[in-house]
Amino acid sequence: MPYQHDVSRCMASVIGDVGLKQGELDAALGEAEAALSEIRQMYAGNTLPLLHLPEKRDDLAACATAAELLTRGASDVVLFGTGGSSLGGQALAQLAGYQVPGPRPRTGPLSAHKIHFFDNLDGETLDLALRRFDPKTTRFVSISKSGGTPETLVQTIAVIEALKQAGLDWNMRQHLVILSSPGNASDNAMRRLAEMHNLVVLDHDPDIGGRFSALSNVGMLPSMMLGLDPGALRSGAADVLQPILDGADAATVAPAVGAAVIHALTERHGLTTSIMMPYSDRLRLFSNWYQQLWAESLGKKGRGTQPVAAAGPVDQHSQMQLFLGGPPDKLLNIIMLQTAGSGPQIPESYRTDPLIGYLAGRTIGDLTDCQQRATAETYARNGRPVRTLTIDTLDETTMGALLMHFMLETIITGLMMKIDPFDQPAVEESKVLTREYLATM
Amino acid sequence: MPYQHDVSRCMASVIGDVGLKQGELDAALGEAEAALSEIRQMYAGNTLPLLHLPEKRDDLAACATAAELLTRGASDVVLFGTGGSSLGGQALAQLAGYQVPGPRPRTGPLSAHKIHFFDNLDGETLDLALRRFDPKTTRFVSISKSGGTPETLVQTIAVIEALKQAGLDWNMRQHLVILSSPGNASDNAMRRLAEMHNLVVLDHDPDIGGRFSALSNVGMLPSMMLGLDPGALRSGAADVLQPILDGADAATVAPAVGAAVIHALTERHGLTTSIMMPYSDRLRLFSNWYQQLWAESLGKKGRGTQPVAAAGPVDQHSQMQLFLGGPPDKLLNIIMLQTAGSGPQIPESYRTDPLIGYLAGRTIGDLTDCQQRATAETYARNGRPVRTLTIDTLDETTMGALLMHFMLETIITGLMMKIDPFDQPAVEESKVLTREYLATM
Repeated sequence: MPYQHDVSRCMASVIGDVGLKQGELDAALGEAEAALSEIRQMYAGNTLPLLHLPEKRDDLAACATAAELLTRGASDVVLFGTGGSSLGGQALAQLAGYQVPGPRPRTGPLSAHKIHFFDNLDGETLDLALRRFDPKTTRFVSISKSGGTPETLVQTIAVIEALKQAGLDWNMRQHLVILSSPGNASDNAMRRLAEMHNLVVLDHDPDIGGRFSALSNVGMLPSMMLGLDPGALRSGAADVLQPILDGADAATVAPAVGAAVIHALTERHGLTTSIMMPYSDRLRLFSNWYQQLWAESLGKKGRGTQPVAAAGPVDQHSQMQLFLGGPPDKLLNIIMLQTAGSGPQIPESYRTDPLIGYLAGRTIGDLTDCQQRATAETYARNGRPVRTLTIDTLDETTMGALLMHFMLETIITGLMMKIDPFDQPAVEESKVLTREYLATM
Repeated sequence: MPYQHDVSRCMASVIGDVGLKQGELDAALGEAEAALSEIRQMYAGNTLPLLHLPEKRDDLAACATAAELLTRGASDVVLFGTGGSSLGGQALAQLAGYQVPGPRPRTGPLSAHKIHFFDNLDGETLDLALRRFDPKTTRFVSISKSGGTPETLVQTIAVIEALKQAGLDWNMRQHLVILSSPGNASDNAMRRLAEMHNLVVLDHDPDIGGRFSALSNVGMLPSMMLGLDPGALRSGAADVLQPILDGADAATVAPAVGAAVIHALTERHGLTTSIMMPYSDRLRLFSNWYQQLWAESLGKKGRGTQPVAAAGPVDQHSQMQLFLGGPPDKLLNIIMLQTAGSGPQIPESYRTDPLIGYLAGRTIGDLTDCQQRATAETYARNGRPVRTLTIDTLDETTMGALLMHFMLETIITGLMMKIDPFDQPAVEESKVLTREYLATM
């Protein structure tokens, strides 16, 4: 497996009363077993295309063509799309350096064009951006499964107007690509715009919701524009899925074990919160992706735990006081990297310094390695449940594995809760009200 | 006041059982009254310097000198500092465009030099960055109140080594500025480094903790490097503080009303979570700042509510399903902007389009205005408490007011909870363990 999964510090035998008794975990694993059967049926019946993405390759040629069209001569590539239609791509792009502090590299795909995710709608942001981008060298991608997401729709129309203004109507096709469900222009607004302006449209699988789309073309297109290997991403995902398809026991399937632990902690020990805390700048947006995935999939029928995005070590100086000192109702999920020995080194010359000496000869990776282990251990010593996922190297394979792990864990948890992890019924009401307000402005 | 504060949709008379009865609010306001007295005593006794920052101006000359030294001929300015030592500066920098999607402007302070916050320690990030920055034109600021924060210390030492490597020892003073508590080099590691390399040091007020430092020189230095007006920031803060100093009733003091509402909801209605959801790209890092402030100040003695950073409208497609459909234990704090009429406009030509027509003639600001109002109203209609802060224009004055509002609300809530909002006792244990692990590596 691309990672080691350790839930031992979620057990009462290690952390005391807040933890799970073995019988509680076993019972939950029994329920998880049933969920794994359901997943195998979905795979066999082809009712959940997400499960076939790890083996899928035939969509990548169209992605490659679109990526080539978009990046040829480009200075900037802007991705529109909101919520799940953006966060998977952002998490993947960060693997290639997006939103990691520091300058962009001077060579490689990241040096050629800059990628921007406009995942939020803000009139001032878009207005300024459209005036500052060079329209000749800027490309846009609009992602909306339904084709009717108002935020993405108005962003796309604003871009079309800006391109017209710049006299680029004749070449709209090179500037704007659409990613939306199959359908025709009479019931999909994005496809209507595409038809009007002769745009390339990539098909969004209608049965893969935004928050489960990181491994579909929604995530692969930005990945390929940044030089990531889509095959490795999907094969990392396959490593996590395969044991389930092979009929492995729930107790040996990491996402099932994770789901069983969190479900039992929630049902029997008052868990309210699940904290995602990777110790890597390249996984900070992964935390945001997880937050959306978990919240929108499982927050239903008056139930669901609050996911919290965190990062280590910075949150040791931020939310950790609450995590350790507040109510003992939070599961801490730490993603650990093998960082010992890496990064800049503190010179030996500080060895005799009474304040700095303890760092002499150590690398920054030594320090963060000790910090991640100390955080996990301290949390457990304070009688609070902590689960770790440890990866050797953060690359496409391990990223694909992490994405699939948490999508499966979310689905299994939803099935154990007897809710539908794939819908989002509560958000309709405010959409209707927004249209009422708009009509009466 | 620079904002309108509305808690009416936290009341049982509007939202039903989860809301507060008038008697509950009145009782909590009585407790808040006592907290306001304490705050007035702290002001009079000069025991909480935060309360004197709004009127303070005599520290700005030193900030201006340092800002000038750092930005002269600079391409990049990097700020080291973790947790509260960074998030206030980040929130302020975002007011000037930092981390707002889109290209940087071609004119003005933001065009001259690029600002970077390295708030997390990551050996790979720092290693790559130090190789990619042009050492001749890159400047660094290291912020650590104690001078001993290991993350900031190792980042600073790595920079000193990189500058030596680049042959810039002779001019270290122009490249690196320290911000740390007064003291001498024998008990403050940052000051020792400053002494060794003849660096400029700005004094960090030892009685202003990192999470309360946004309006001190910690926040003013980056603000001034980005062309923001520090006087306006502080005068906006003064607008919020002054009624308290003038002895106004708690019921008329917005931060006291906010604290009373959240304290009573927590104590009597099972509130576990406080969501910060501004409808502006320029306030997304403000949400992160709030999350740290609230968590570290109030998560103590087994109590404290979980702060959650969100943003509108994007979280309507993300966490909103959980907020509306999950347990009714979350207060939604919406910061609304007057956006109607602003931003790009959808052409009238779409008027007859059956899918897009409802947007014709509307601006993006019209849509986000309707969305923020619909989100608040939907939340209330679903029997969940929502509080709004509405500002006309987001600028230095309103930003200063928002920062002071939430610092005061946090302090008042802490005093009502009878905990110390200024300490962070729980995070010591893992620091000790980290040093043990480091010693035995």
